[in-house]
Amino acid sequence: MNPVEIIIKKRNRQILSEEELKFFINGYLEGKIPDYQMSAFLMTIYFNGMNSDETIALTRIMLYSGEVLDLSQIDGLKVDKHSTGGVGDKTSLVIAPIAAAAGVKVPMISGRGLGHTGGTLDKLESIPGFRTDLSKDEFIKIVDKVGACLIGQTKEIAPADKKIYAIRDVTGTVESIPLICASIMSKKLAEGINGLVLDVKTGNGAFMKNLNDSENLAVNLKNISESFGVKTIAYITDMNQPLGNYVGNWLEVYESIKILKDEIHNELTELCHLLSGTMIYLGGKSKDVEEGILISKELITNGKAYQKFLEIVENQSGDVSYIENLNKYPEPKFRIEVKANRSGLISRMDSFAIGMLGIELGAGRMKYTDEIDPKAGFIFFKKVGDEVGEGDLITEIHTDKNNSDYFVTKFLNSIEISDKKTEPLPLVYKTI
Amino acid sequence: MNPVEIIIKKRNRQILSEEELKFFINGYLEGKIPDYQMSAFLMTIYFNGMNSDETIALTRIMLYSGEVLDLSQIDGLKVDKHSTGGVGDKTSLVIAPIAAAAGVKVPMISGRGLGHTGGTLDKLESIPGFRTDLSKDEFIKIVDKVGACLIGQTKEIAPADKKIYAIRDVTGTVESIPLICASIMSKKLAEGINGLVLDVKTGNGAFMKNLNDSENLAVNLKNISESFGVKTIAYITDMNQPLGNYVGNWLEVYESIKILKDEIHNELTELCHLLSGTMIYLGGKSKDVEEGILISKELITNGKAYQKFLEIVENQSGDVSYIENLNKYPEPKFRIEVKANRSGLISRMDSFAIGMLGIELGAGRMKYTDEIDPKAGFIFFKKVGDEVGEGDLITEIHTDKNNSDYFVTKFLNSIEISDKKTEPLPLVYKTI
Repeated sequence: MNPVEIIIKKRNRQILSEEELKFFINGYLEGKIPDYQMSAFLMTIYFNGMNSDETIALTRIMLYSGEVLDLSQIDGLKVDKHSTGGVGDKTSLVIAPIAAAAGVKVPMISGRGLGHTGGTLDKLESIPGFRTDLSKDEFIKIVDKVGACLIGQTKEIAPADKKIYAIRDVTGTVESIPLICASIMSKKLAEGINGLVLDVKTGNGAFMKNLNDSENLAVNLKNISESFGVKTIAYITDMNQPLGNYVGNWLEVYESIKILKDEIHNELTELCHLLSGTMIYLGGKSKDVEEGILISKELITNGKAYQKFLEIVENQSGDVSYIENLNKYPEPKFRIEVKANRSGLISRMDSFAIGMLGIELGAGRMKYTDEIDPKAGFIFFKKVGDEVGEGDLITEIHTDKNNSDYFVTKFLNSIEISDKKTEPLPLVYKTI
Repeated sequence: MNPVEIIIKKRNRQILSEEELKFFINGYLEGKIPDYQMSAFLMTIYFNGMNSDETIALTRIMLYSGEVLDLSQIDGLKVDKHSTGGVGDKTSLVIAPIAAAAGVKVPMISGRGLGHTGGTLDKLESIPGFRTDLSKDEFIKIVDKVGACLIGQTKEIAPADKKIYAIRDVTGTVESIPLICASIMSKKLAEGINGLVLDVKTGNGAFMKNLNDSENLAVNLKNISESFGVKTIAYITDMNQPLGNYVGNWLEVYESIKILKDEIHNELTELCHLLSGTMIYLGGKSKDVEEGILISKELITNGKAYQKFLEIVENQSGDVSYIENLNKYPEPKFRIEVKANRSGLISRMDSFAIGMLGIELGAGRMKYTDEIDPKAGFIFFKKVGDEVGEGDLITEIHTDKNNSDYFVTKFLNSIEISDKKTEPLPLVYKTI
């Protein structure tokens, strides 16, 4: 086998065998195939795609390029959730403790935020002391004892994905369904899970802007997941506005705690119950998703999910005093009120633009090495479909940066207030 | 400007500006843009093509990445011919002296053979002493004095093409019309010519296997050439069998000399007159191509073209005694006769397979560093359309390698003898 022949084969729309893919991916990992052949190969995949067999083979090769956790020593079914990412998407922080409180085991390996989207690890690390860099043994021990543990990707997991993602990022080959699927699934399957809930976002703040692409991605992800024997349910959910009323690392922890304490009931609460209810079902703790949702709601009202959250924080070295006394957290230097410049209805929120503004406030990063201000972010008082009078408070911006006029203008430019009656956005578009 | 954005722009079928192309190509030459971004970019061009403006801009950038010869000190029009390459294509050796004998100036920069196709430089270097590595000044001096000089590409000419071609070769991005056009034309235009004859081959031994692709290539090449003010005529000619009756480096010099001495009259002779007649016309030495052809034929019969050939060889340090006494040349160790294994008509010759067999005989190379045996090759006694009886001599193989059974079997597998009446192949399919 010869790398150029494999590139030309895919370029000419032929189907690659698992051996050919293995030769290419492993050769690349071993340094025998150079970056310039990999980037040309990735571009052929961008243009010509991959069929289901090829995508599953690619996933398997990337999965076994590293370690696959063996959680068989832990009793019960292991279930995780994966979201394709958006603005204000903090469901992991709520649903991991709920599912764990229901007796499901949740070995959750998460990522960091990049660009306009946030990352679960950054949110958790806004809790003073919270550690996401646990060893594999510590991770397994906490999943067993507490029921849930949330950490970052270890070096041992899917090294092929790490190396391939780095080159995709600089060669215009990120936006390819088979490459996205293999990247996501090689990491998720390494967790050694039995069940998976997929939350595929669609809309102006999502990676996939339209329903068709999102559905295509969801179908492909589920297909791969199930081919590895993982029971999978996928939801296509809205990302045409930030999720919930808080965006920013600590602010999202804050909102999660409020939900876990039964003090906030918004569309985020509803989505959390759907996802945790599905995890409870896939974890064998309810006869269907509906019953799972009822159990999920009960675990909020009886305080057990919140207690589980405290237990997780404690076991991952977080300082629970900040959870128990939310006012203890440091204040941002500036709280900037953004008020409606006209009356009408909020007819559009550009989540991408809001996410990008979040980076300027200090809440996000453009490069993985950038520093984050955990206090920075937004509190939304109005969302799409809400009526506003001129001068009504729409948003409060939290930041340490002294640039309020610029921030207010930029925020107002990222939303639309008009006279047209806009229905509140749907939460879930489709179940797959 | 940012290389990833330019890759994504072309990937998304947008038109690139000359500035964007310049940024990318020059950045690559300067080492600011890495190989892996160039290969991804080239693959987007493979898939999405380039329009005429983009291709011309790319050619201009590659042309001016190096030196463009200034032949204005030489009197008269400068005309060259470019062939897209094939098996047995030795027309340059015949037409350069004819055109020069007619008073046209022929500054011919040629290439080496690679894969199944031969190269003019290798053929010329089979003449003992013949030098193709002349300096620019020596080259210009000989063009001025003799009327024609044939050398290899110098380092100063189109360095961007050299670097880009090297990466295309190993990333499956060779077969792209705009990239092929920019590569060919950036080198040809650097010769400082006023006229160009394009011989675009079509058929089983050509780069382009079908007439449509060949025509597309010819139209694009002519379009670029004329946009730089070079008067251009393109022919699409047959490469469904080796050209002429001799294939191999010295054997092709031999056939060329025989044509120049008016001793061989085959389809190659006819093609040579068409090409040199066109050069004579473009060089302002005839009122049309037809008259150019008459002049060309006369320069053979009156011996002037042959004298010009001797003059070229002498001026490029070649030993003319080998030309004047063809029997002086070393003999191959083996002359293997290939005879027809049945009676019938030669209905097909696979020129690609014959070219590849030539490499095994020692006549060609797979890598530029491979050595060549100038004596190795084939003499054809039968071509497509000819009748053969069982046992009739079809071909004589010349080689130093002792493997005759294998060579004979392989040769017979590369031709087809059948009962179906096959018309002799046309020589010229189209003039553009």
